[in-house]
Amino acid sequence: MTKWVYRFSAGRSEGSAAMRDLLGGKGANLAEMAALGLPVPPGFTITTEVCAHFYANGHAFPKGLEAEVDAAMEEIGRIAGHAFNDPKWPLLVSVRSGARASMPGMMDTVLNLGLNDKTVEALARYSGDARFAWDCYRRFIEMYSSVVLGVEHHIFEEALEEIKEAKGLTLDTQLCADDWRAAVARFKAIVEANAGVSFPQEPRAQLWGAIRAVFASWMNHRAIVYRHLHNIPESWGTAVNVQAMVFGNMDANSATGVAFTRNPSTGVKELYGEYLINAQGEDVVAGLRTPQPLTEVASRASPGEKISLEAAMPKIFAEFTQVADKLERHYRDMQDMEFTVERGKLWMLQTRNGKRTARAALKLAVDMANEGLITREEALLRVEPTSLDQLLHPTIDPAAKRDILATGLPASPGAAFGEIVFNPEEAETLAASGRKVILVRTETSPEDIHGMHAAEGILTARGGMTSHAAVVARGMGKPCVTGAGALRIDYEDQSFTVAGKRFVKGDKLTIDGSAGHVIFGEVKMQRPELTGEFAVLMGWADKIRRLKVRANAETPADARAARRFGAEGIGLARTEHMFFEGERIVAVREMILADDAEGRRAALAKLLPIQREDFKHLFEIMAGLPVTIRLLDPPLHEFLPHNDTELAAVARAMGADPVKLRRRALQLSEFNPMLGFRGVRLAVVFPEIVDMQARAIFEAAIEASLSTGEPARIEIMAPLVFARAELDLVKARIEAMAALVEQETGVRPRFEVGTMIELPRAALRADEIAPSADFFSFGTNDLTQTTLGISRDDAGSFLGAYVEQGVLPHDPFVSIDQEGVGELVALGCQRARAARPDIALGVCGEHGGDPASVAFFETIGIDYVSCSPFRVPIARLAAAQAVLGRKADGTA
Amino acid sequence: MTKWVYRFSAGRSEGSAAMRDLLGGKGANLAEMAALGLPVPPGFTITTEVCAHFYANGHAFPKGLEAEVDAAMEEIGRIAGHAFNDPKWPLLVSVRSGARASMPGMMDTVLNLGLNDKTVEALARYSGDARFAWDCYRRFIEMYSSVVLGVEHHIFEEALEEIKEAKGLTLDTQLCADDWRAAVARFKAIVEANAGVSFPQEPRAQLWGAIRAVFASWMNHRAIVYRHLHNIPESWGTAVNVQAMVFGNMDANSATGVAFTRNPSTGVKELYGEYLINAQGEDVVAGLRTPQPLTEVASRASPGEKISLEAAMPKIFAEFTQVADKLERHYRDMQDMEFTVERGKLWMLQTRNGKRTARAALKLAVDMANEGLITREEALLRVEPTSLDQLLHPTIDPAAKRDILATGLPASPGAAFGEIVFNPEEAETLAASGRKVILVRTETSPEDIHGMHAAEGILTARGGMTSHAAVVARGMGKPCVTGAGALRIDYEDQSFTVAGKRFVKGDKLTIDGSAGHVIFGEVKMQRPELTGEFAVLMGWADKIRRLKVRANAETPADARAARRFGAEGIGLARTEHMFFEGERIVAVREMILADDAEGRRAALAKLLPIQREDFKHLFEIMAGLPVTIRLLDPPLHEFLPHNDTELAAVARAMGADPVKLRRRALQLSEFNPMLGFRGVRLAVVFPEIVDMQARAIFEAAIEASLSTGEPARIEIMAPLVFARAELDLVKARIEAMAALVEQETGVRPRFEVGTMIELPRAALRADEIAPSADFFSFGTNDLTQTTLGISRDDAGSFLGAYVEQGVLPHDPFVSIDQEGVGELVALGCQRARAARPDIALGVCGEHGGDPASVAFFETIGIDYVSCSPFRVPIARLAAAQAVLGRKADGTA
Repeated sequence: MTKWVYRFSAGRSEGSAAMRDLLGGKGANLAEMAALGLPVPPGFTITTEVCAHFYANGHAFPKGLEAEVDAAMEEIGRIAGHAFNDPKWPLLVSVRSGARASMPGMMDTVLNLGLNDKTVEALARYSGDARFAWDCYRRFIEMYSSVVLGVEHHIFEEALEEIKEAKGLTLDTQLCADDWRAAVARFKAIVEANAGVSFPQEPRAQLWGAIRAVFASWMNHRAIVYRHLHNIPESWGTAVNVQAMVFGNMDANSATGVAFTRNPSTGVKELYGEYLINAQGEDVVAGLRTPQPLTEVASRASPGEKISLEAAMPKIFAEFTQVADKLERHYRDMQDMEFTVERGKLWMLQTRNGKRTARAALKLAVDMANEGLITREEALLRVEPTSLDQLLHPTIDPAAKRDILATGLPASPGAAFGEIVFNPEEAETLAASGRKVILVRTETSPEDIHGMHAAEGILTARGGMTSHAAVVARGMGKPCVTGAGALRIDYEDQSFTVAGKRFVKGDKLTIDGSAGHVIFGEVKMQRPELTGEFAVLMGWADKIRRLKVRANAETPADARAARRFGAEGIGLARTEHMFFEGERIVAVREMILADDAEGRRAALAKLLPIQREDFKHLFEIMAGLPVTIRLLDPPLHEFLPHNDTELAAVARAMGADPVKLRRRALQLSEFNPMLGFRGVRLAVVFPEIVDMQARAIFEAAIEASLSTGEPARIEIMAPLVFARAELDLVKARIEAMAALVEQETGVRPRFEVGTMIELPRAALRADEIAPSADFFSFGTNDLTQTTLGISRDDAGSFLGAYVEQGVLPHDPFVSIDQEGVGELVALGCQRARAARPDIALGVCGEHGGDPASVAFFETIGIDYVSCSPFRVPIARLAAAQAVLGRKADGTA
Repeated sequence: MTKWVYRFSAGRSEGSAAMRDLLGGKGANLAEMAALGLPVPPGFTITTEVCAHFYANGHAFPKGLEAEVDAAMEEIGRIAGHAFNDPKWPLLVSVRSGARASMPGMMDTVLNLGLNDKTVEALARYSGDARFAWDCYRRFIEMYSSVVLGVEHHIFEEALEEIKEAKGLTLDTQLCADDWRAAVARFKAIVEANAGVSFPQEPRAQLWGAIRAVFASWMNHRAIVYRHLHNIPESWGTAVNVQAMVFGNMDANSATGVAFTRNPSTGVKELYGEYLINAQGEDVVAGLRTPQPLTEVASRASPGEKISLEAAMPKIFAEFTQVADKLERHYRDMQDMEFTVERGKLWMLQTRNGKRTARAALKLAVDMANEGLITREEALLRVEPTSLDQLLHPTIDPAAKRDILATGLPASPGAAFGEIVFNPEEAETLAASGRKVILVRTETSPEDIHGMHAAEGILTARGGMTSHAAVVARGMGKPCVTGAGALRIDYEDQSFTVAGKRFVKGDKLTIDGSAGHVIFGEVKMQRPELTGEFAVLMGWADKIRRLKVRANAETPADARAARRFGAEGIGLARTEHMFFEGERIVAVREMILADDAEGRRAALAKLLPIQREDFKHLFEIMAGLPVTIRLLDPPLHEFLPHNDTELAAVARAMGADPVKLRRRALQLSEFNPMLGFRGVRLAVVFPEIVDMQARAIFEAAIEASLSTGEPARIEIMAPLVFARAELDLVKARIEAMAALVEQETGVRPRFEVGTMIELPRAALRADEIAPSADFFSFGTNDLTQTTLGISRDDAGSFLGAYVEQGVLPHDPFVSIDQEGVGELVALGCQRARAARPDIALGVCGEHGGDPASVAFFETIGIDYVSCSPFRVPIARLAAAQAVLGRKADGTA
């Protein structure tokens, strides 16, 4: 026969923490505390199976439940020493929901159940406080009537206001016992008038009404929406906990408080919390009275006259300290506890793993491992990899007030403050003069990069999580908010309007790239501090992980940041990002607009020394670590002049006819540049570009090796390959150039040649391509675009709807689509290894910094991931967790 | 021991037609004719293995070859009754190349070998014609010296000119025997001066020089290029044929001619050919004398005094007729023969399967099958499917002169003539007034369609074989030339220039869409005639093929053409093609620019009756055959207003603010529309579009069923799906609409819902999607675009180079990329069938009309292909050939 009810009381328990699915989180933890012998008020949990039965059978309860509840109530009475309707000291109980996952405030609760016209008098006598008793009773009527009988809350509130007004009072605390007695009479009348029944006087009837109502609240609108947002299945259901009430507000020997076993904000090992003497739990939260610190240390550290629990109730404090310690050791994690002292007796009402900041999570994990409370492997699993982002960027002080103008996408984490500018040139100028700016654009394009570099943060009105602005900003570690659609930008007017307000150039703005907030004015921030624990945890992660972690970087600043964050090389240096700086764009345009190979070579000759210098810096910074340089990738027209002035400049530099140039520029424009003349196709048609880049790479590597004393590890990568012949053509040019450079310098460059795998065909033909490639790097961004047929830049119009309607579980550009794109990557790996077992397999898309994707890459045997420098620590930790995950599920 | 030499002579033969690889085409056929006992001048073939040995061993011949050649020469002498240097009647031989595949004129030949200062005199005596003998000798010196000794041809030509000038003559025929004797002396001097050797007098030395030179010519530049262009492997090598010379110009009892066993132009069963009395083979070709018809029938049919062979040499004619008949029966195909009559004796010099026109091929195949010469299956294999195109379109008279202005891509077959217009509106107006126009555009877009419909043909300066213009024109069966890059179009001036000439509106132009020619003025054309044989062969194909063939069609005209060509339903009706006609575009624009679902519904209500009417026509024409209607697919901005006038019209219709509309239009513009907000994504975000289209379909089907008496077979197809949830959302809307229509009309619409599979993810997830789909239709156009990452519209800049450099074997939009895209299609089929064995699997890309692709689809178990109406017969034949191909290779 199914058991519907699980009882608990100090030292006795039918349940345990492991029975969360059946008893809900609250019930399971109460059961566990009780089993540990801690002072838990007696009670019982009605299981989630009853909830399932309730909904499957037209709100009927299963047979046998009633008898089990009656028996459990009897036991509560026996243990507590009093029962419902006890004329001396009547038992009161709370009836609370408690689901498997926490759903704070979403479902209903009834407190003080058991009060009626008689027991209220008994409580008054027993407590010696008539005001307390009648206040409890009117609260109970209000709560019960609204939860169980459907009388709206505001009706009681209005009546109470009238009572106070009639007496010329403003605060509830000013009302005396008789006032509350009058309020009770009035409330009962309200119930009769609105619910059509008189307020139930029989506690057992009250109990069943409350149990039914709490189960019913599983399907209230709030709860349904919350579950939907948090992916909590409806089928889980809630449990219901019935427990004897204890009162922290019965006298001066009573108190109530909340506590953490460690500081949840910093992670420091110190009992941390607040309490109030002669108060109820809600008083601590409500803020009418100022809560006091628990410990003497905390008391001395804070200003003003404070009496700590340690000083006020030393015995209770000692007992509570032991309890807290026991709970933390038992749960092997920081606990968040609620307690009440009733007439000098400590009662534990709740414990759970405490929420913590990223910083605290890190310290807790490392400390607990060092204390031997948990293993290092467990410590690694205690820190959410993406939360590390918070530690690497300035963040907004959690206490600061935010005047949010608009919300966009949290495109690149961290917060930034500055004055509004609308164009990248101005951003550069102002930044050069020491001013902080936020670059505001409808969207960004490659030629905005210098302005993005100069700005503190970037804000765009269009674009998604993987728009140009987002990708580049993450790469730079700059805070960025994209797709703030409410902004109406007017470049000519140098202003934007949002929600009817107008903001002009120079106005101050703060953006929170972790939350997607656009905030008016300057908000207080916290600087990042990489504590010792960060380094320690990263060290542990590095020992466990199998996946290597490299960074996507092309500027010296990025490369240096990458090394600081522990990158083991550069997995992707996008040469085209170097093409927009300063004067070089004119030479780039010359190359593109040249009529023939001759003209292109002349322009390329100008670019050679610039590229060589760029590459030299990278090789020097990475001294001996591998540097993967990708050959020119984007559609040429990205570099084209945008107006007649720019066109004229190029025409002058080339000595060419502007009209002819304009025509050529028009020829280069494409309908779908993403699928156009780009990638290795440029190299196949204009091999002289490869020649120049290969020469620049080899010469740079030779110079850098001399200055660092380490041999440069060159990896040259062809983009957008779909057939072996493309790679072979490029490889032949590179090898010829290597021979030429050897002839000229006497040094034979050592290098590897590989390819991006970023088209479905490349993944399918991996076995054909692999014999020509020393390495593959899966470009999962473009592979996602082609496999799903989604242009990142244009996805804004439907991707939101797709995730909302559950067509996609998440943005596939943020976390890899394992079933589609993932299968292609896995297939590519498998076929590549079959054809060439020693091939190195990497991933250099955005997914390289996403923990769920990293876990997937671990399972399919990728050798390394490469992500933006600021994501390197995330990837290192995620890679370690991935190994642990496979150990846990037995696949490694 | 390897045998290097294969001998042949009338009635004796060491080789056969089956030994083509070893003996080359010419050698094998000579051997075969000899084996048949036909009068073949004796000779022998040196095998292709000697060629391989020659190149593998530094141009050395294998041991034993010399002895074998000597023995064979001896046998020739024995059979012919004379030998080299025979003082009475010296033997002369020809030395010719002959590879496995025909490479006409690419390699070298030496004739009249065996002549020298002595034998020339003997020949003069024997033939009684000194002029003939000396002319032969000087020809031999000229040919041998250029082929073997490397003396350039023009030196001899110039010397000959001088001789004629000195005598005041202009024609070779005016020279007498002594002139030729003088020429010989002069030629020998030239050889000494230029080659540094005297002209070899010893026939055996001449022979080895010629054999060596012919083998060497396998690697001359011409031959290498030809092989590359025709995919002939270098390793095949050539054979060398040495054969006794016979002379058709020895006297009035001699003659020479060429003949076909049937008419190669019409296929009619009649001996067809020409001959000349007392002439050499080259005289028939050279055109100095007018050749005579072979038969009396032909003689009477042609104007002027003609003497047929039948009349002139009745015995020879009778013998030749028998030979021809024997050869055709033996080879079971129309033969193309060369013969010579030397002093009253018939010699057969060559036979091979004759080239034929598409029309002749069709008639030959059907006739020969009816005659029992070949089986019906063989008949089906005798016709190249794509050649049927020629029969379905008007073509340029092969005899007509073409003044070609420019050459573009043969984008849609057939020829068209008309006056130049530059805009679609004008095309429509002029066509309505009965004038024929050619629409000339830089490139076309969907709103040009009405103009394309009105035009006789379409010519564009940009775009490839699968550009918009090409695809639409093929769909319409209109001739089209795309990518004629030499055209510089100036819309404002209403003119274009090409090669310095200017053409204006109204100038006359002919285009040949089968050849890609743009031709000045009007050229004579041939009308298509679908002869009885066409229907017969199609009938045979239909009995054998497994693949069903449907058509891509949305207009009534296309649908009717589709049925005429034997389509078994519509596999793809693109609803958006209907959106551009007349007034409906304004309503379409209203829908797109609407702010909310309300506004969209209002616009959709205007479109409903129009769409219903469109669909009704399709259902009526297809009466009972399946009609697959694809829901709205393209990016919305394709329909946007292009200028302020159009914008104002929409604003008026909507009662909306033009400025707001402009902003909305801007919002809809995309970077990569191909990967943007289109396909099923429109349906997911704007489901009211699905509602309207589903209603239009159901209501149209009900009406059509009433008028045709056949239940309409509705198939509704969602485009660009990549996940099952998308299809489910659409399906739910369609099913709800079906229920509503049933409620309203009392008729329950019967329909199937399926999806395009045109994204790699869809193919990979076929097992997930299949349970929700009644059918899949692989959209191999878009699947190629995404799998290879190539935008069709932008591929022009590199696809040519890719095919030229061998990166791709062919344009993957013309013939499916079997290794990449093909694997995805195969995988999709396999997974779909595993999840839902009864699912129908089709292909509706351009590849559905490509024979190589059809053969591939046959092997992977596709159920039907759908192609443009004019390709339906091609697909039917290709599908039959695919079945036969699988039978032949044992896979079916």
